[in-house]
Amino acid sequence: MSTLGAAVIGAGYWGPNLVRNFVGSPEYDLRWVCDVDEARAAKITAPYGTVRSTTSIDDVLSDPAVDVVAIATPAATHTAVALSALQAGKHVLVEKPLAASYADGEKIVEEARRAGLVVMCDHTYCYTPAVRKIRDLIASGELGDIHYVDSVRINLGLVQRDVDVIWDLAPHDLSIMDAILPVERRPIAVAAHGADPIGAGRACVAHLSLVLPGDAIAHVHVNWLSPTKIRTFVVGGSRRTLVWDDLNPSQRVTIYDRGVDMQEKDGTEARNAAMISYRSGDMIAPALSEGEALRSVVDELAAAVREGRPALTDGASGLRVLDILESASRSLEFKGAIVPLRTGR
Amino acid sequence: MSTLGAAVIGAGYWGPNLVRNFVGSPEYDLRWVCDVDEARAAKITAPYGTVRSTTSIDDVLSDPAVDVVAIATPAATHTAVALSALQAGKHVLVEKPLAASYADGEKIVEEARRAGLVVMCDHTYCYTPAVRKIRDLIASGELGDIHYVDSVRINLGLVQRDVDVIWDLAPHDLSIMDAILPVERRPIAVAAHGADPIGAGRACVAHLSLVLPGDAIAHVHVNWLSPTKIRTFVVGGSRRTLVWDDLNPSQRVTIYDRGVDMQEKDGTEARNAAMISYRSGDMIAPALSEGEALRSVVDELAAAVREGRPALTDGASGLRVLDILESASRSLEFKGAIVPLRTGR
Amino acid sequence: MSTLGAAVIGAGYWGPNLVRNFVGSPEYDLRWVCDVDEARAAKITAPYGTVRSTTSIDDVLSDPAVDVVAIATPAATHTAVALSALQAGKHVLVEKPLAASYADGEKIVEEARRAGLVVMCDHTYCYTPAVRKIRDLIASGELGDIHYVDSVRINLGLVQRDVDVIWDLAPHDLSIMDAILPVERRPIAVAAHGADPIGAGRACVAHLSLVLPGDAIAHVHVNWLSPTKIRTFVVGGSRRTLVWDDLNPSQRVTIYDRGVDMQEKDGTEARNAAMISYRSGDMIAPALSEGEALRSVVDELAAAVREGRPALTDGASGLRVLDILESASRSLEFKGAIVPLRTGR
Amino acid sequence: MSTLGAAVIGAGYWGPNLVRNFVGSPEYDLRWVCDVDEARAAKITAPYGTVRSTTSIDDVLSDPAVDVVAIATPAATHTAVALSALQAGKHVLVEKPLAASYADGEKIVEEARRAGLVVMCDHTYCYTPAVRKIRDLIASGELGDIHYVDSVRINLGLVQRDVDVIWDLAPHDLSIMDAILPVERRPIAVAAHGADPIGAGRACVAHLSLVLPGDAIAHVHVNWLSPTKIRTFVVGGSRRTLVWDDLNPSQRVTIYDRGVDMQEKDGTEARNAAMISYRSGDMIAPALSEGEALRSVVDELAAAVREGRPALTDGASGLRVLDILESASRSLEFKGAIVPLRTGR
Repeated sequence: MSTLGAAVIGAGYWGPNLVRNFVGSPEYDLRWVCDVDEARAAKITAPYGTVRSTTSIDDVLSDPAVDVVAIATPAATHTAVALSALQAGKHVLVEKPLAASYADGEKIVEEARRAGLVVMCDHTYCYTPAVRKIRDLIASGELGDIHYVDSVRINLGLVQRDVDVIWDLAPHDLSIMDAILPVERRPIAVAAHGADPIGAGRACVAHLSLVLPGDAIAHVHVNWLSPTKIRTFVVGGSRRTLVWDDLNPSQRVTIYDRGVDMQEKDGTEARNAAMISYRSGDMIAPALSEGEALRSVVDELAAAVREGRPALTDGASGLRVLDILESASRSLEFKGAIVPLRTGR
Repeated sequence: MSTLGAAVIGAGYWGPNLVRNFVGSPEYDLRWVCDVDEARAAKITAPYGTVRSTTSIDDVLSDPAVDVVAIATPAATHTAVALSALQAGKHVLVEKPLAASYADGEKIVEEARRAGLVVMCDHTYCYTPAVRKIRDLIASGELGDIHYVDSVRINLGLVQRDVDVIWDLAPHDLSIMDAILPVERRPIAVAAHGADPIGAGRACVAHLSLVLPGDAIAHVHVNWLSPTKIRTFVVGGSRRTLVWDDLNPSQRVTIYDRGVDMQEKDGTEARNAAMISYRSGDMIAPALSEGEALRSVVDELAAAVREGRPALTDGASGLRVLDILESASRSLEFKGAIVPLRTGR
Repeated sequence: MSTLGAAVIGAGYWGPNLVRNFVGSPEYDLRWVCDVDEARAAKITAPYGTVRSTTSIDDVLSDPAVDVVAIATPAATHTAVALSALQAGKHVLVEKPLAASYADGEKIVEEARRAGLVVMCDHTYCYTPAVRKIRDLIASGELGDIHYVDSVRINLGLVQRDVDVIWDLAPHDLSIMDAILPVERRPIAVAAHGADPIGAGRACVAHLSLVLPGDAIAHVHVNWLSPTKIRTFVVGGSRRTLVWDDLNPSQRVTIYDRGVDMQEKDGTEARNAAMISYRSGDMIAPALSEGEALRSVVDELAAAVREGRPALTDGASGLRVLDILESASRSLEFKGAIVPLRTGR
Repeated sequence: MSTLGAAVIGAGYWGPNLVRNFVGSPEYDLRWVCDVDEARAAKITAPYGTVRSTTSIDDVLSDPAVDVVAIATPAATHTAVALSALQAGKHVLVEKPLAASYADGEKIVEEARRAGLVVMCDHTYCYTPAVRKIRDLIASGELGDIHYVDSVRINLGLVQRDVDVIWDLAPHDLSIMDAILPVERRPIAVAAHGADPIGAGRACVAHLSLVLPGDAIAHVHVNWLSPTKIRTFVVGGSRRTLVWDDLNPSQRVTIYDRGVDMQEKDGTEARNAAMISYRSGDMIAPALSEGEALRSVVDELAAAVREGRPALTDGASGLRVLDILESASRSLEFKGAIVPLRTGR
């Protein structure tokens, strides 16, 4: 089976990581790194004799040996670059967020559908061993029904000039939720509360509450101002509850067999007669597989292209994330009003 | 100076602690323990020869030597018992919450005002060394302006039959906020999001977002279903940020000199010209004084009675907490709608 | 089956706990609390109408309804009191350490043997759910062969006036080791290194190294001067390693399926040809049973008396602990010289 | 001021780090990377156009533009390479340990002394911000007299084929102690206890007890078999105690103002009359400077060369570490016998 020709557009913060993983994977032959800054592109390609650098996207798109294009340019340019690439017949991998708006994201997804090409979002976290484990545990029923999800992503962060803390950080949490939740538990509405106490011109602290079907709830806390760094993600289920602490390398994922159970009595007895009991079982921290998440991203891209199937984090998942982000912005504007999602069921 | 005659009404979960502290304080002569269950009252008084037990509130209220009455009966009875005690000329200490509704709470506060008596809420947490330290640090300006407050109080808790998780747990967080926040930063509105994923008939997981003046925010996360126990309370300030972790006895309160600063440029330059800088200084965990919080509660009660002044956690503070609780309930009903507070400025 | 008549001698720090548990257990009828300080004894018995207090040991020993005597007097008096009790035909429970010297301990054990009575050491830690779990896991082979034991017991402790830090703290660690180690892995020699940097007149920091058969090792670190409190006990085994952290109530016992394995090659190849491999499996924190350890102590005492069998922490185990303590003192004197144990195999 | 010509000999595990830091420092002009494996040397130099690779040490030593040689070859070869370099008039930086034996180390130090050249040990940990902070705090008297040092360095480590766990891991702890302890508190004797429970042919678990003047003590626990990773280093002082936890990036160094104080009474009263008191003050975690330790190593080397002074971790410190390692090996042989140090006072 022949290798896929690849190109990376955008040689900034994330570009070198993409380059390293495309070069490291036997699935690919990396041919181009393209950036408006010639020196930046050249610096990345230097150690790899066979990769060319260019400032011209046309060089990349007109190369018939290029099959896939990874887009790591600023978010505002994703749509134009992705549409060009798709129109040139290339599969695309796009950095998060997929586009700067839901409407733009729809254009990309629609163009890919028309052209029969793969569009994949680089939701890197979804490919970490921890998230893959969580996905498997939920899919296999180990956790039972999902009762609540609680994600905290706070630390002293760079106050961005163009986006608020929700658009900066929450795409991680939202894409992870999208990857692990069963279809019938996907969020249907969102409310956002934020604050800009330092006068930065945009929310620096925010709380998203997501309504999940079945009287379940998800919550995301993002904060640029916290002196402590917390990265926890909790999935409460009817059978077990899972805690992922990304800053605890020796015990990233822990599964608790502790919880509250309701037993409905037989017959006509209603809720009041329900009996509550408490479980207090073992706690287990499963061994996780090794491996860099971004390597799994490029491998999944190759598999999707070769098998002609959507990637795990396909354009539709990118759209669902954009839907929540846009709805959260609208909720912020309206003082926390609940906003139903377009992509909700 | 003579001692104050005291009585405890309600010998359930909290009553024995009140008894122990009234007996232990030189300020008081504990005279009565009253409970509908005669044996329960008798059991508590057994080790203390001079304290009588009774099932009759009249015994207590007709004793002219009783100056203060501590009410530890179920919340639904607080109003009737407190009004009787006040009408009998006794100062009252009431368990949290002050009453079952804001309207009832108002009656108690009004009656006390009319009679010139002290009504104090037993917001015990407000008298812990940790909260007293936090109050002092905020009052002295050590933390600067308050930017955000974040309280998490979750663990596998008893699912209550009469109240939801907000009314069960959030009074702690809300009374603490009330005790530490400067008047001009008190909440002005609240939104609540909750879920009842186990079918208990009431919210078991909830998030409260509180709007504070100055584009600041407070958030409270309460949860009965969490297998892990977390009790953290963060106060983010313009100068420093404080983290109180009540489950870390060796480092309960930590003050971080880390944060984001905005420097407005001189002259006509607006927000865009503001410069952002980051501080990364020392972290300090101050030594805290020792002492049982409930002992400080009864001592504060004695001081308020003797000095004819409101207690730190007076009736007005109890009302402010009830206002938020009731407003949160209304918000829950209306899917998270923001509800302005009566007691907001 | 009739209850056992019990008496507690010594109403100091530990006495009230013994009283509470004897009263709480249906196995016993507590009849006496005896102390040289009449008021102290009387205060303990006050809440319990049927228990008498006395300053005379003779009152206790001459009461034919007394079957067992719990001795919680200062260590220097253990031998005299225990011998009197045994000579009066009473079974005895003795606080740690069993006696002030190995020779004295032998007298107690010998007297009990002659009289056919039970002598049990109150090694309370051995009856905690954590240690019982560890014992079971080792006995069932879950951990495999024991490779190393590492116990750390440090914090800012009261500098004792009569004993050094080894005699003050290490009895806990040593009695736990004695309770959990298989007979063929019991220590055979000890070396002790200590220091008295504050000029207290006795070692305030000490390290014990214990030689275990099979080229295994145990180590105990005790320290009165540490500002941080650590209570960890690690058992490294050929199959799994267990960590007990007594200060982590949410995860006291953790079992790691991680380690180093040696595979001997077939045939004549020697050690150099051994192949090393590394395991990295799940980690599990088993749910522990509830219950106060001291209650299990008094229950075990009743069972040993009724069944005419040695208690789990019998006189022989008390002697083995004394042997190590005395040998450690001798090692300290001789600058850390290794001292073979009398009770080693 | 002209740059120093540099060469790195040995392109294995550590070589690339040395290369990166020599290239990154303006003090140096890196000219050569030398390794027996030509491809390995070439791979490291590839990104840096001006650095040549070679398999011949002679190429390096005969280049008159080379001023300093960094030796990162296997420990067994340090002596031969270092002596050649010194004889060729080059200053040397040697990986830990300085040599495979104390006698060999002495030859290197002696040759450097004779030639008037710098010999520096790459005790990298000594140049971390944490250790520099500890050194400063001790030197300035902030911690007071040193009472005890306790270092734990355990985790599932590679079982080495040529050295035991002491020679593999303890050089880190011992070189750190050497760098921070005042001259009058340097160790004067050592005892070592080890075990090889897995049959690896060498100690896999070991405890070193070091006698410090003033009835102080230091202890090092190294272990290849531990499933948990611990890297803590405690310095107990008469005024304060410091804990360095290298695995806690948010709070690496913590200083506790808690401890035990002895107050000698005036006059003739002796030790028995000493009064013990307990301090319980604040805890502080100072902000640490940033910067890669190895960069500070190469900068210190340049400063030592230019100023004609010994480096902070000079040959003498390397010899003191070797002395303890050799003495520990002898102690292991003699079942933990205490071995006085040649380099003790």
